[in-house]
Amino acid sequence: MIDLPAPDRQVIARRDQIAAALKAIVPDGVASDPASLRAFDRDALTAYAQLPLVCVLPATAEQVSAVLKFAQREGLRVVPRGAGTSLSGGALPLADGILLGLSRMNRILELDYDNRCVVVQPGVTNAAVTRAVQARGYYYAPDPSSQIACTIGGNVAENSGGIHCLKYGLTTHNLMGVELVLINGERLRIGGKFAGAGGLDLLGIICGSEGLLGIVTEATLRILPRPPVTRTLLIAFSGASAAGRCVAGIIAAGIIPAALEFMDRRCIDAVERFCAPGYPPDAEAILIAELDGMPAEVADQCRDLSGIAGQCGATAIRGCADEAERARVWSGRKAAFGAMGRLKPDMLCMDGTIPRAALPQMLEKISALSDHYGLICCNVFHAGDGNLHPLIVFDCMKEGELERAEAFGADILKLCVEMGGVLTGEHGVGVEKKALMGEMFSDADLNQQQRLKCAFDAASQLNPGKVFPVLHACVELGRMHVRDGRVPFGNLPRM
Amino acid sequence: MIDLPAPDRQVIARRDQIAAALKAIVPDGVASDPASLRAFDRDALTAYAQLPLVCVLPATAEQVSAVLKFAQREGLRVVPRGAGTSLSGGALPLADGILLGLSRMNRILELDYDNRCVVVQPGVTNAAVTRAVQARGYYYAPDPSSQIACTIGGNVAENSGGIHCLKYGLTTHNLMGVELVLINGERLRIGGKFAGAGGLDLLGIICGSEGLLGIVTEATLRILPRPPVTRTLLIAFSGASAAGRCVAGIIAAGIIPAALEFMDRRCIDAVERFCAPGYPPDAEAILIAELDGMPAEVADQCRDLSGIAGQCGATAIRGCADEAERARVWSGRKAAFGAMGRLKPDMLCMDGTIPRAALPQMLEKISALSDHYGLICCNVFHAGDGNLHPLIVFDCMKEGELERAEAFGADILKLCVEMGGVLTGEHGVGVEKKALMGEMFSDADLNQQQRLKCAFDAASQLNPGKVFPVLHACVELGRMHVRDGRVPFGNLPRM
Repeated sequence: MIDLPAPDRQVIARRDQIAAALKAIVPDGVASDPASLRAFDRDALTAYAQLPLVCVLPATAEQVSAVLKFAQREGLRVVPRGAGTSLSGGALPLADGILLGLSRMNRILELDYDNRCVVVQPGVTNAAVTRAVQARGYYYAPDPSSQIACTIGGNVAENSGGIHCLKYGLTTHNLMGVELVLINGERLRIGGKFAGAGGLDLLGIICGSEGLLGIVTEATLRILPRPPVTRTLLIAFSGASAAGRCVAGIIAAGIIPAALEFMDRRCIDAVERFCAPGYPPDAEAILIAELDGMPAEVADQCRDLSGIAGQCGATAIRGCADEAERARVWSGRKAAFGAMGRLKPDMLCMDGTIPRAALPQMLEKISALSDHYGLICCNVFHAGDGNLHPLIVFDCMKEGELERAEAFGADILKLCVEMGGVLTGEHGVGVEKKALMGEMFSDADLNQQQRLKCAFDAASQLNPGKVFPVLHACVELGRMHVRDGRVPFGNLPRM
Repeated sequence: MIDLPAPDRQVIARRDQIAAALKAIVPDGVASDPASLRAFDRDALTAYAQLPLVCVLPATAEQVSAVLKFAQREGLRVVPRGAGTSLSGGALPLADGILLGLSRMNRILELDYDNRCVVVQPGVTNAAVTRAVQARGYYYAPDPSSQIACTIGGNVAENSGGIHCLKYGLTTHNLMGVELVLINGERLRIGGKFAGAGGLDLLGIICGSEGLLGIVTEATLRILPRPPVTRTLLIAFSGASAAGRCVAGIIAAGIIPAALEFMDRRCIDAVERFCAPGYPPDAEAILIAELDGMPAEVADQCRDLSGIAGQCGATAIRGCADEAERARVWSGRKAAFGAMGRLKPDMLCMDGTIPRAALPQMLEKISALSDHYGLICCNVFHAGDGNLHPLIVFDCMKEGELERAEAFGADILKLCVEMGGVLTGEHGVGVEKKALMGEMFSDADLNQQQRLKCAFDAASQLNPGKVFPVLHACVELGRMHVRDGRVPFGNLPRM
């Protein structure tokens, strides 16, 4: 189903020579034997694997720069990799490509409490950022489920979210600056500790660019003071529609919970068997709502939210009495992806976003698709922001199941777009969704995105085959600007 | 001092023909006689004026698209204009350029409380957005001083801030999506009501792009629920350094006021004479701090903030008893720019950002520069985020004063960058600061920004002469990607 650029046999034949050149740049961090490369052959979109040509693990930004300069000179493709937790295949290697791993660049460079930020290398894990500042009462807000493993470089590349992004935003809302190394080896400083700067703001386009524009070698992240009070409510419903109405009611009432998560019956069953978080056994759907802030504010919001849940027909509302109970409630949600392994060996985790009001309708349509494809789908959503993670389980060793699972997933994402939503909330496009980009974007949109790609990497050496269904040659894209057969110049007088 | 592209005499000679062609597109919205054009000859950087070739005021996105398509075909330059309140000359016309005014596109298209956003045309004023939603308890957070006049299109172009951007962010943090018309007439939809989407996120680079990339014909803006309680404190100090220490202390204590504004003695004097807001007569500096949120939270923060102010040697701390008193305190701050007119006929409002800790040092240096240039400078700052607005007053009819004021301003901005800050906080670069871009950005940074410009507008027809000190021809910028004399293609096999 995925469609990567055809490997260049002549490049593959030069593997030893390329590895030797990379060793001259990073003496202690190059692997080219199949056994070592095996560790890098896939990311968390596990259905696809490919050994890279060679793997290089630079330890400094200088080395990253030198590797890219070498790749540009030699016309080689480069696939960047953080911790390999991408669910959309963003770090899937190329047979003729250098895999550039950032795992060794894992130092926290600066804790700046005056400016409320930290400066880190890309290989620092998401959880390590909070760990470094929590003694002073701060934390880093984006919290993907993979946070103990996934790294900041990958978070920036995928614009990662997490269960608290309803209130605190995605990575792009918590990223203040980066150092970016271009394919020509140049190092740019983009953004930083202060708002504003002048000129074009490149930071937004870097965040979520899935390794297509450059390599992030340093990130400045906003840290937030930990709210004094956090309260977690577990709310059970006798039907998914009631839970959907409750979500809409909460938001409409002006309450923005720190988190507002939905799980359906199938998902509850699976996680109960996996880690027994103690969810109400008769619930058809549950919401986990978390409220944080000052004590009085949280108490008010808990009362209001419980009232709304009651009006929507909640069958049980349970507050967590202590941190242990809170941890237990969250353990089920956090284990949802892992719990799927008990149902079937393989899983596709979808990631579309829809208007909140469309949740009940969407659940019905997913259920119908599940029957149609004969595949189980468990639903776990960041309900507050309408970000769905339907989990399609299957067995890729059974003929046709992968293809059916992919078709099922594609139908779900098309539905998201039809309902006025978008193709991805926080997992990126990667190889998984690139065929669907045309559902979401017009040709004009896609051409403009590709012109921007060309402005960073005209020869498409960085992570080719990801994100764009067909990547046009930059010269072609530019042609629409040519008048009378001539390429017009900037400020030069015309005619 | 400003350096605009040389006008093309042949284009100027075609004025009537160009006006006629534009009238065919926008029958009721074209002006080409000098008397009508006079209204558009400058923005709020009033020292510079230039009659445009012709002015067109489209009423629909279709007309904007047709005007740009015409301009591209004819190789004409286009300068977009909102309400003309830019302080950096972003809307300064070109003698051979079409001035494209968006003032007629002033409809609010949608109030969407479920998704907490509004959809507006670019000519809607900033204040009108809040007015439209306030009955339901919502507001639009960015609040530039010019908010009753300035428009959302201009706010997006300049990434405008305001006194509340410390807590609620600049325009870029409150902008969810735009419709952008490219120079080739194509209409792109970028972002929208939902987080995420897939592909490259163009929204960040559009916001603050000062009319260089395209014309925004629709914007989706986040609205926030009005906090239940707002408290405003007026704090007096016997010296500016003490006020600076107080700012640093407040932020370090983890308090993020909704606003935290600084005014020095000279500025206090000027506004007292202008509108008598009743500031303490013996204060050498004042801070206006505003706290908002839930009642208990605001009460706690008021107590803590007052404590910090006391420790920093505040000579008076006054809470506003009611809305009338609050309005009076803010009236002085909001009238600061206008009050300068009592001192001298002309003003340059600077707009740099520095680390908060450097405030006292910066004030001393500005004072020394004021002596050196023999010009008065009043200091009014968004102190909480280190965004300075030194107001240099002068009389441009006196020989050399404009030049001295500009040199003074340039020295201030260079100091900002030297101190680890940035060139602009919220007013943009325009023509005012473009000569200083090299102080802030490396050649690699500037080249990358210009490659992005080229990806939108390769012939530099949109607002040329703004932002970039020298805009390179796109073909030149691309040349670094040429290998072996050939322009490399995207995914085509190499060698």
